[in-house]
Amino acid sequence: MADQITKRSENYSQWYSDLVVKADLAEQSSVRGCMVIKPYGYAIWEKMQRTLDDMFKATGVQNAYFPLFIPKSFFSKEAEHVAGFAKECAVVTHHRLMNDPGGKGVVVDPEAKLEEELIVRPTSETIIWSTYKNWIKSWRDLPILCNQWANVVRWEMRTRLFLRTAEFLWQEGHTAHATAQEAMEETERMVNVYADFARNYMAIPVIVGHKSPNERFAGALDTMTIEAMMQDGKALQAGTSHFLGQNFAKSFDVKFANKEGQLEYVWATSWGVSTRLMGALVMAHGDDNGLVLPPALAPIQVVMVPIYKTDEERSAIIAKMEEFKKALEAKGHSVKIDDRDTLRPGFKFAEWELKGVPVRMAMGPRDLAAGTVEVARRDNMTKTTVPLEGLEHSVEDLLADIQKGIYEKALAFRASNVEKCDDWEEFKAKIGTGKFLLCHWDGTAETEQKIKDETKATIRCIPVDSFVCEEEGKDIYSGKPSKQRVVFAIAY
Amino acid sequence: MADQITKRSENYSQWYSDLVVKADLAEQSSVRGCMVIKPYGYAIWEKMQRTLDDMFKATGVQNAYFPLFIPKSFFSKEAEHVAGFAKECAVVTHHRLMNDPGGKGVVVDPEAKLEEELIVRPTSETIIWSTYKNWIKSWRDLPILCNQWANVVRWEMRTRLFLRTAEFLWQEGHTAHATAQEAMEETERMVNVYADFARNYMAIPVIVGHKSPNERFAGALDTMTIEAMMQDGKALQAGTSHFLGQNFAKSFDVKFANKEGQLEYVWATSWGVSTRLMGALVMAHGDDNGLVLPPALAPIQVVMVPIYKTDEERSAIIAKMEEFKKALEAKGHSVKIDDRDTLRPGFKFAEWELKGVPVRMAMGPRDLAAGTVEVARRDNMTKTTVPLEGLEHSVEDLLADIQKGIYEKALAFRASNVEKCDDWEEFKAKIGTGKFLLCHWDGTAETEQKIKDETKATIRCIPVDSFVCEEEGKDIYSGKPSKQRVVFAIAY
Repeated sequence: MADQITKRSENYSQWYSDLVVKADLAEQSSVRGCMVIKPYGYAIWEKMQRTLDDMFKATGVQNAYFPLFIPKSFFSKEAEHVAGFAKECAVVTHHRLMNDPGGKGVVVDPEAKLEEELIVRPTSETIIWSTYKNWIKSWRDLPILCNQWANVVRWEMRTRLFLRTAEFLWQEGHTAHATAQEAMEETERMVNVYADFARNYMAIPVIVGHKSPNERFAGALDTMTIEAMMQDGKALQAGTSHFLGQNFAKSFDVKFANKEGQLEYVWATSWGVSTRLMGALVMAHGDDNGLVLPPALAPIQVVMVPIYKTDEERSAIIAKMEEFKKALEAKGHSVKIDDRDTLRPGFKFAEWELKGVPVRMAMGPRDLAAGTVEVARRDNMTKTTVPLEGLEHSVEDLLADIQKGIYEKALAFRASNVEKCDDWEEFKAKIGTGKFLLCHWDGTAETEQKIKDETKATIRCIPVDSFVCEEEGKDIYSGKPSKQRVVFAIAY
Repeated sequence: MADQITKRSENYSQWYSDLVVKADLAEQSSVRGCMVIKPYGYAIWEKMQRTLDDMFKATGVQNAYFPLFIPKSFFSKEAEHVAGFAKECAVVTHHRLMNDPGGKGVVVDPEAKLEEELIVRPTSETIIWSTYKNWIKSWRDLPILCNQWANVVRWEMRTRLFLRTAEFLWQEGHTAHATAQEAMEETERMVNVYADFARNYMAIPVIVGHKSPNERFAGALDTMTIEAMMQDGKALQAGTSHFLGQNFAKSFDVKFANKEGQLEYVWATSWGVSTRLMGALVMAHGDDNGLVLPPALAPIQVVMVPIYKTDEERSAIIAKMEEFKKALEAKGHSVKIDDRDTLRPGFKFAEWELKGVPVRMAMGPRDLAAGTVEVARRDNMTKTTVPLEGLEHSVEDLLADIQKGIYEKALAFRASNVEKCDDWEEFKAKIGTGKFLLCHWDGTAETEQKIKDETKATIRCIPVDSFVCEEEGKDIYSGKPSKQRVVFAIAY
């Protein structure tokens, strides 16, 4: 099956697409730019959702649901937000179809034109802040900590499955606070939730930092991000958390009476991750044989393949497997016995490798007699023979070890591809070779733009937890003074 | 708080709206016909989702996700389906906004007109069957059992929160089978899952049956339904499961090679429940004091209200409450201690009554000294004094008792409002008074239509599990022969 997949070394981009499609994660739909998320892909997304949802709720966040449509006029209210967002989007203009008078199927009923066009949400700040206006009267109503799991639409010209699609699934948190400090704390809290999730569940090391003003979300005073390195050395922005100041409160006139009875504008944050995380997961860990899923997010953690010739052998082996399946499930692990009898074991092995199942067990009559089983790790493709006695414990340890191993491999890869760089010629030579470069920057949008124009590299973030280098220096491009290095990379 | 709610006896419809809004379940948004589901309402919906999702998965169903948009041409493919569905819907015609050349915010960019209009899905049969075409080649690929949790849009003229909204949330299952029999079995399996959920979680008795041809889903050969009686005696269709025959397979040319290698069209089902269930929950059990939630779906099952004068009393009582909270949470129950110190206990009592929390505990210094607590049941508004010793067990029993009690109350109400009726004059006199009438029907669409025209009553279903009366008789309207009684009622 691996021979159907382009090798990373040949064409990384094609390798990615092959993996997504052949491992049954997603496919293009008949609607331009919209994807179908297939059951296996969706099962991974569900695990991500469930985990993140629990993490959000542990911080006091509640879920809610706001309308899919946003009146066009709302986009005229927050000027900066519009400039960044409202352009490429799906516009609903009519509310009825009718039979074609010419008999050719259906046509749009010209009589059913909406008075005001509706925009399919590209993000929900405007509709949510128009709602919060009615929810907030006094300091007692604050904070409001709402999240929604929803679909959003941004009319992208060039799409790639999971990474950039016209419709995608995401969560968007929108919080309202009495003070700037509380809102900034919330912004940081949530970017740290994302970092925690990326590291401990996705097994992806990320850099937490602030975006430069150029790269901020439209309408934000500060955007924090988690940035991950993919196997081609490019950066992928995997989640963002925005401090929105009072911009939306002012646009939608949302004020609260403080403890002294004075009216003040409310402070806002928003934060989100999307099905783009699926792309990150594939690109961070996959290899030329297929997906490599961290156990914490694998829909199937252990697959068992029986090897037999006779029906008698088959039932003895499967009976034994059922035993271990139960024991492992009792420990909260997900196990599949692949008992399809129209396929050869070798075909099954390749299929589960392609699908990234962390642990594969194979058992034949001789194993059964010897009281052993062959255990293969997907991450490093090693095989060992393990005694059946105590198997549920050894498998549990193995899963933990794989989770750790995948993270460490990604961490080592990143470590070997991050460099300090203080020379502009060196920068130009290295930036396209799959490196994160830590460079001094003078803090101006002009310099950032010039570097981008010349090299396509952008400032991924001004780091706050990994690779923090607070030291005096000179901007790599302009030579002007700088107080901290920032992370430059070519990004997805 | 109850004085803000219209009494059921005064205006049932207003009572319903009051409950939904005052209990913080949902509200109208600034987008016509679209609702905002507030955190408390969404928490109930999440419990419904989680429970149903587990039930679906236990039957082998997997979740997936299909595009929000459907190309207009797809609606021309299944003629019957179009006639029933494609008319009142949201039509996307453009993909870009631009700054108004006149400087007044944003306008639709006339250059960005789509070649083919896109319809926001009112239901997904067409887009899903166009996808299944690529997934299905042989009998080995069948059955396909997919479900999606999604938002859909139907441009309703008159909307009511949860019961009928332009956008609503739902799940839609779409299955593909090799034989008609398997598809019909799936149709029945899923309507029975819905009935089980309604009875055992929502505590609502439902009648399972077949829809008459007039009331079938557009494009279905058979529609099965669960029908519930609300407190005004009207019927609410709470979930449907459709046997679609080969209609969609033929429209989208989906064939499979059977075991003999011959190509056959695939057989289909679809089945769904929506946020309408929230409306059913409110209307089936609420009273003039507010919601009455069955413990199985209550976001908060037990609320504890401390009663105190001094800080010392407060901390002693809350410490004790924390103890029981832990013990109850360990048993899987959700508990809230309402320690807000700006509100009086009486206010809190009324608020939690309004919100339908099944069990309320109040504890003051004297209770603490005596080792007791006052326990109030929301369903029958009774109070008892219960010893702290073994409280977690007595509360657990109480919750089970309430769940049962709410169901039995609804069952008794329905029993007293279902009657056999064999006389047309009697039918006309009784049908508007909040009754389900079991009547003979001659099986023709004409008779059904005439009865509807004269009385607004429809055939809710031809029952298969409750109220089955297979007996010879004469149609209540036409006098023609009939072999079974059907359920007539006025419906939501």
